[in-house]
Amino acid sequence: MCGVFGIISNKSKENLVEIAYLGLLHLQHRGQDAAGLAYNDNGRVRIEKGKGLVNHIFNSVKRREIASHKPWIILGHTRYSTAGADSLINTQPHWIDTLKGRQALASNGDIPNLINEKKILEKQGVEFYTDNDGEFLLKKINFLASNKEGNLLSAIIETMKSTAGSYSAALMVRDQIFIFRDPWGNRPFILGEKNGSIIFTSETCALDGVGAKFVREINPGEVIHINQKGELKSIQAIELKKKAHCIFEHIYFARPDSKIFGQKEVGAFRYRLGKKLAKAYPVKADFVTSVPDSGNFAAIGYSVEAKIPYRILLVRNPYIPRTFIMPGQQNREYLARLKYSVMKEILKTKNRVILVDDSIVRGTTNKAIIKMMREAGAKEIHLRISSPPIINPCHYGINTPTQEELIACSHSIEEIRKFLEVDSLGYLSLEDLKNNVKKNKQKPENFCFACFNKKYPI
Amino acid sequence: MCGVFGIISNKSKENLVEIAYLGLLHLQHRGQDAAGLAYNDNGRVRIEKGKGLVNHIFNSVKRREIASHKPWIILGHTRYSTAGADSLINTQPHWIDTLKGRQALASNGDIPNLINEKKILEKQGVEFYTDNDGEFLLKKINFLASNKEGNLLSAIIETMKSTAGSYSAALMVRDQIFIFRDPWGNRPFILGEKNGSIIFTSETCALDGVGAKFVREINPGEVIHINQKGELKSIQAIELKKKAHCIFEHIYFARPDSKIFGQKEVGAFRYRLGKKLAKAYPVKADFVTSVPDSGNFAAIGYSVEAKIPYRILLVRNPYIPRTFIMPGQQNREYLARLKYSVMKEILKTKNRVILVDDSIVRGTTNKAIIKMMREAGAKEIHLRISSPPIINPCHYGINTPTQEELIACSHSIEEIRKFLEVDSLGYLSLEDLKNNVKKNKQKPENFCFACFNKKYPI
Amino acid sequence: MCGVFGIISNKSKENLVEIAYLGLLHLQHRGQDAAGLAYNDNGRVRIEKGKGLVNHIFNSVKRREIASHKPWIILGHTRYSTAGADSLINTQPHWIDTLKGRQALASNGDIPNLINEKKILEKQGVEFYTDNDGEFLLKKINFLASNKEGNLLSAIIETMKSTAGSYSAALMVRDQIFIFRDPWGNRPFILGEKNGSIIFTSETCALDGVGAKFVREINPGEVIHINQKGELKSIQAIELKKKAHCIFEHIYFARPDSKIFGQKEVGAFRYRLGKKLAKAYPVKADFVTSVPDSGNFAAIGYSVEAKIPYRILLVRNPYIPRTFIMPGQQNREYLARLKYSVMKEILKTKNRVILVDDSIVRGTTNKAIIKMMREAGAKEIHLRISSPPIINPCHYGINTPTQEELIACSHSIEEIRKFLEVDSLGYLSLEDLKNNVKKNKQKPENFCFACFNKKYPI
Amino acid sequence: MCGVFGIISNKSKENLVEIAYLGLLHLQHRGQDAAGLAYNDNGRVRIEKGKGLVNHIFNSVKRREIASHKPWIILGHTRYSTAGADSLINTQPHWIDTLKGRQALASNGDIPNLINEKKILEKQGVEFYTDNDGEFLLKKINFLASNKEGNLLSAIIETMKSTAGSYSAALMVRDQIFIFRDPWGNRPFILGEKNGSIIFTSETCALDGVGAKFVREINPGEVIHINQKGELKSIQAIELKKKAHCIFEHIYFARPDSKIFGQKEVGAFRYRLGKKLAKAYPVKADFVTSVPDSGNFAAIGYSVEAKIPYRILLVRNPYIPRTFIMPGQQNREYLARLKYSVMKEILKTKNRVILVDDSIVRGTTNKAIIKMMREAGAKEIHLRISSPPIINPCHYGINTPTQEELIACSHSIEEIRKFLEVDSLGYLSLEDLKNNVKKNKQKPENFCFACFNKKYPI
Repeated sequence: MCGVFGIISNKSKENLVEIAYLGLLHLQHRGQDAAGLAYNDNGRVRIEKGKGLVNHIFNSVKRREIASHKPWIILGHTRYSTAGADSLINTQPHWIDTLKGRQALASNGDIPNLINEKKILEKQGVEFYTDNDGEFLLKKINFLASNKEGNLLSAIIETMKSTAGSYSAALMVRDQIFIFRDPWGNRPFILGEKNGSIIFTSETCALDGVGAKFVREINPGEVIHINQKGELKSIQAIELKKKAHCIFEHIYFARPDSKIFGQKEVGAFRYRLGKKLAKAYPVKADFVTSVPDSGNFAAIGYSVEAKIPYRILLVRNPYIPRTFIMPGQQNREYLARLKYSVMKEILKTKNRVILVDDSIVRGTTNKAIIKMMREAGAKEIHLRISSPPIINPCHYGINTPTQEELIACSHSIEEIRKFLEVDSLGYLSLEDLKNNVKKNKQKPENFCFACFNKKYPI
Repeated sequence: MCGVFGIISNKSKENLVEIAYLGLLHLQHRGQDAAGLAYNDNGRVRIEKGKGLVNHIFNSVKRREIASHKPWIILGHTRYSTAGADSLINTQPHWIDTLKGRQALASNGDIPNLINEKKILEKQGVEFYTDNDGEFLLKKINFLASNKEGNLLSAIIETMKSTAGSYSAALMVRDQIFIFRDPWGNRPFILGEKNGSIIFTSETCALDGVGAKFVREINPGEVIHINQKGELKSIQAIELKKKAHCIFEHIYFARPDSKIFGQKEVGAFRYRLGKKLAKAYPVKADFVTSVPDSGNFAAIGYSVEAKIPYRILLVRNPYIPRTFIMPGQQNREYLARLKYSVMKEILKTKNRVILVDDSIVRGTTNKAIIKMMREAGAKEIHLRISSPPIINPCHYGINTPTQEELIACSHSIEEIRKFLEVDSLGYLSLEDLKNNVKKNKQKPENFCFACFNKKYPI
Repeated sequence: MCGVFGIISNKSKENLVEIAYLGLLHLQHRGQDAAGLAYNDNGRVRIEKGKGLVNHIFNSVKRREIASHKPWIILGHTRYSTAGADSLINTQPHWIDTLKGRQALASNGDIPNLINEKKILEKQGVEFYTDNDGEFLLKKINFLASNKEGNLLSAIIETMKSTAGSYSAALMVRDQIFIFRDPWGNRPFILGEKNGSIIFTSETCALDGVGAKFVREINPGEVIHINQKGELKSIQAIELKKKAHCIFEHIYFARPDSKIFGQKEVGAFRYRLGKKLAKAYPVKADFVTSVPDSGNFAAIGYSVEAKIPYRILLVRNPYIPRTFIMPGQQNREYLARLKYSVMKEILKTKNRVILVDDSIVRGTTNKAIIKMMREAGAKEIHLRISSPPIINPCHYGINTPTQEELIACSHSIEEIRKFLEVDSLGYLSLEDLKNNVKKNKQKPENFCFACFNKKYPI
Repeated sequence: MCGVFGIISNKSKENLVEIAYLGLLHLQHRGQDAAGLAYNDNGRVRIEKGKGLVNHIFNSVKRREIASHKPWIILGHTRYSTAGADSLINTQPHWIDTLKGRQALASNGDIPNLINEKKILEKQGVEFYTDNDGEFLLKKINFLASNKEGNLLSAIIETMKSTAGSYSAALMVRDQIFIFRDPWGNRPFILGEKNGSIIFTSETCALDGVGAKFVREINPGEVIHINQKGELKSIQAIELKKKAHCIFEHIYFARPDSKIFGQKEVGAFRYRLGKKLAKAYPVKADFVTSVPDSGNFAAIGYSVEAKIPYRILLVRNPYIPRTFIMPGQQNREYLARLKYSVMKEILKTKNRVILVDDSIVRGTTNKAIIKMMREAGAKEIHLRISSPPIINPCHYGINTPTQEELIACSHSIEEIRKFLEVDSLGYLSLEDLKNNVKKNKQKPENFCFACFNKKYPI
């Protein structure tokens, strides 16, 4: 998970730095560990990166400094780091200095076979500093381009054709930019427009956030080249019959107000999942409630369908950072107690609860929440999950644990129910999930459900 | 608004620093601008303070350092700073070095007549460095104690008797601590217990957060003295017939899972306000929705009472800090657009909305949100406010604007409706608010409604 | 060793902060570990302190900030920290907040019996945070003053009468300052004047450095009180028949261009010591040279008297900080090699050298230097020391090692010569040192030679 | 002015980081504004750079971190920045990421025609980020190499042949390093050896400082290639009949204990210049003295020759940094007063002084010093300069002012004397300077005297 946001001006006088900054603020949910900007300055490419939140790294002093260079191309990134890879060297945009100028690349996605792909290039002398797919894409493109003088476009296309993986990426070179997306369209990638400036973004919420208009999705397999004059050229480098849009973007990642993969708003998608859950697993209860914030939309959908009132019974402390670590107490129950509080009083009297969450990964956080609700007085807890059991790790950019850690991989639903100590447990069926995709007039074949069915389309 | 949290150990081996840290994390919503800890170290009082979030100031390195002193009394504070007063000198705990040792004080509240009260002491030679009520309390107590050798307790009582204002405070002296609360009980102040250790906190949510038990409220007008041996002595210094609990704690400040002022959980209180609103201002609509997160409970209450489905139509970006300032663009519309996003798709088809919020202060943020909803397609917007019109600034610790800025001070409800461009506007009546207090078996006379009715009880 | 510098304006428009800053820069040789300023701001006392060099702590931003308060009393300090005591809490000025206002004290000197003196006050309830003599003086004065309302002057005098030790100190209270010096006059303390402003300083070099005039020494046992109107009152609190000026200030500490203890310039004093050394220990050699910079003046004196040419054979690297520590290689030979380089070529041909240094403490650094000179080709090295053997630690402010570490304490001069591997070794006699004092028309009885003769006058 | 220091291990177990660190500490006098290290790590090149002093940037934490990578090639640099060019981007080593790996280059010297040289490459698409000659060399070499796959050596030779200018440089590529020096040998560049490791350094003082042996000068026009196996290959790329060693290294820059350009120790060179000055400009006086530290050796030479005693009359404050700037008071008199103090007492009685300095640039600092000496009582001041009048700016790496600012460019010696208000003024003749070079058995034709005679040899 990461966020990509870029803007190419029509050379109007708008302050692009503030727009890029806002864009990144609206993609902060896709990565809170680091952020970076590449921008052009009179034919040069400059880079600013840092660890932490966008608001902290790109404070007003830093933004004024960048704006003083009057950039008209900006390429930004928010990073979600995986364990042990949170050093500055891993932050994007990645860049190299070539004789033809500095080149910067930012990407959201993952190359499953990265280690082997790197080895092939390393044998030919290419040097890598990270295990980051962005660095790999940048160097592979450069390696291929170095044999064909100056032709970055064909190098990008060749890279796209020869690299199996997921990437919503942009490569910036002096006063030009190449925007490209893997042929499976695995991660979202959107084109927008604001006062004549071109914007690309991981999610539409960033378009709304900066007051820009949605234009279209960047096509899977498409390369968009914007040259020094701001002229846009689109090349459909590869066209596959089937896409592999990540269904988990709809279930968990994307912001509810975003529209991705040609679907309607993500929040509405989740609401309908909740309704389907209610039909599939009805049960008598006093309230429907959700694990905030990821379960909210599905819980309301469940409540409407089941005609059981929705109530907020869990409150989330917004000041607990994602990467919060307590020395010696890193267990998930501890973290869950820090992050969530229970409305206790109501549970003492009306205590039959339907609890809706988006998914179960290890099960440990869910278990801790359920324990807290029991302590508060909940007598019956019926857990409803708005996605099928996760039985496989993701290879395309989601930081899921190994197969061993996935509870649904090695346990039956009844075993999970017992482990979580809930009175009943209902997972959305894969069929219902696919049907929900169809409802938006999309084909389920164009989505990747590998975490639920082990069929990796890439 | 501020948060106070303290712990006095029964000399068990528990790491008090981690508990105090968790406590402050759970009072972070009462102040995000600064935080501080005073702790005892072998008969000395040490202080650690900083600007920013608790998690940032008291990182694991700092906590280990503090824990190495093995403190068994800790007094913590989270600070909500008012404009122009965000420098480190204003952070609490305040402290002075006397010959009898360092003394540290942390307080939540406000002394309305602070400027004049300070002048009286200044004439007698007392020196102040801030306009902070905590510094005032500390120095007044010391001034009074300096004439009566060593008798801090009587100085505290004398200060309580002679100072009109609001304070939930604690004074730490070497290995002793005095906890005291103004006789009106204006701000919440709670006593708890964990494994024999005594805890005091602004809200019960911090007790739950650290795994402690609720014992009782600290009485308005009570002083609790805990001596070097951990012996607790309670003195009822003043007893007034009427209290002046801040009703706005229930409406907006306190966390929904907290229980304060002997009432039930704050979230339940708000839920019932929503129900009363629904009865008072019924209207046909497709959905009830809320301004997150402050309107959530009342909106759900409204929805249940009105039998109109609750839907999330506004999404809040949790990464926009409270003190977020954009150079040259500080208008509230800009900030509202940064902070809130609208679920647009649903509003295009079903677009008659009841929007519930907790209050209207200036009206500018509400107006911006309504404008965003209109742009997204809302045809009818019926605004429901779960509190009466605010016609007066608060003198006891809430950072409200001046009378001129309060829209309800100078405008009729119809004028406000037009300004906000909503189809209808309903404020909860003061009577309904008072009735809701009664429902919890409390007397409305014991609450301060001054912001709604200008009757300042203190 | 420390430096004290203060200025009290005649309320002219001069920027006192810049003057105080320059003054501290010129006292940097007396302490490089930390520095601090106390200054008045409208009846209040504010403090700024930091670790490191004056130039770093009081950068232009910080100085502008301080100047914005338009202080007209400033009290500054440069700190030379002893092992294990380099934390910020030890930096001066020390301060406490009393009800009558903040009080700040800076001091150069030492209270030999500090531990016991503190215990007496601790029994009466006084609390200490450091083992610093400045904190002790501040709190003792306050303790004594607290019984006699407001009379700081008599408390200072009582403190001076009852505390055996060395202090050149100043106590700042609101818009007043008290400057006082121990009755033995152990450390230098000078009064100056610049455009009507009063200056006090540890050494005259700071007067020259800020363009001020020398007025007189502050008398041993004198208290100078400067009140809110800038009126100066001098009280001779104690008068002893004999003083105890530190002779080591002349030998090593003070800057060569300073005049202290009513003597002529320190550099001239050292020059004459060199001449006396030459008379006492003549030897044939090709060159006289010095360990820079402390031996320079004496070496030139030796050269002139002995009519043997002076040459620079050792070069000092000015970028090696005093507190330079190499992990795992803290031996003094290593440090000596880092700090000093030898002019090798000349030593290959003309290699009989008289090496002049100011003193021998442990002997290890001297040994390392001599080894380097031998390696470079020196055949004969005749070491001449411009002070007598140090046989005792100092109790009044000089950070000398324990008796065991002092080589002259346990070794004969011949043993030292062998240890250092020099061809001859000559120490200045105590008589010659005393005679040199007499030459400046001062009485040796008024100086402390305890490190040479164990007679501690205080 | 800059310093270059590198070490290539014979893969022994010595900690190269500590050696490189010591080496840079001993080249700190050649640049105090920034420093950097490139080092190899398992076939990669890593870079650490910072602004400030070596001791500060490469503190023990940083050194341990670098040492953990077990580098066996280290390339270091100390930077002396010119006005307006002190940002981090200008610090060396410069580096670029090529597909064949990161390349880092550090250099001491200057390319006079840099602007035009850059333009030629810019037309061919090469991108520059600084006006730094190191970046130019790095990119020119890479540009030339990119046409001839992998052959960096021939690109370096081609660069050396086609670039007129001064450079003592090294280029590090993965596990190899190329060390090369301009054919004029303008800046010093030395080869050393320590326990089998190869060292290169700007001055021999760094060899002594790390306990290494002098091997030889790197030849002007030589390239030394050290491959992955540590094998050293020397190529004499260009051989010119005449060299252009910078004579100012001998007069001012180099540390006195260094041996450069095949000459004897720099201090001895300066000493003889002083003797020649004494012969050329004899005068009666009480003392010879020097402007410390640059005039010390020449002053002693003058003193010995003239048989007039040498005395230290000016004391330098070592804590005033080179880049010290006072807001609003940047005039040089102010700085001179900060930096130098006068021994006043002696000047009151014996006050005919011969003052020796190494050179006069603008004349303003000299004038300030002379004024201070006059104020202290000097009656006669005879200024002796141990170099000829500087009538031209340097084009090869010395930060001299423009021609207009050079006082000797537009004023006769008598005019300068009057401006400085000295009683007599004697400059060393160019002939005497050349004769002094000859005395060391070197040919003056191999030195650059352009600042004195406008004959630029490059």
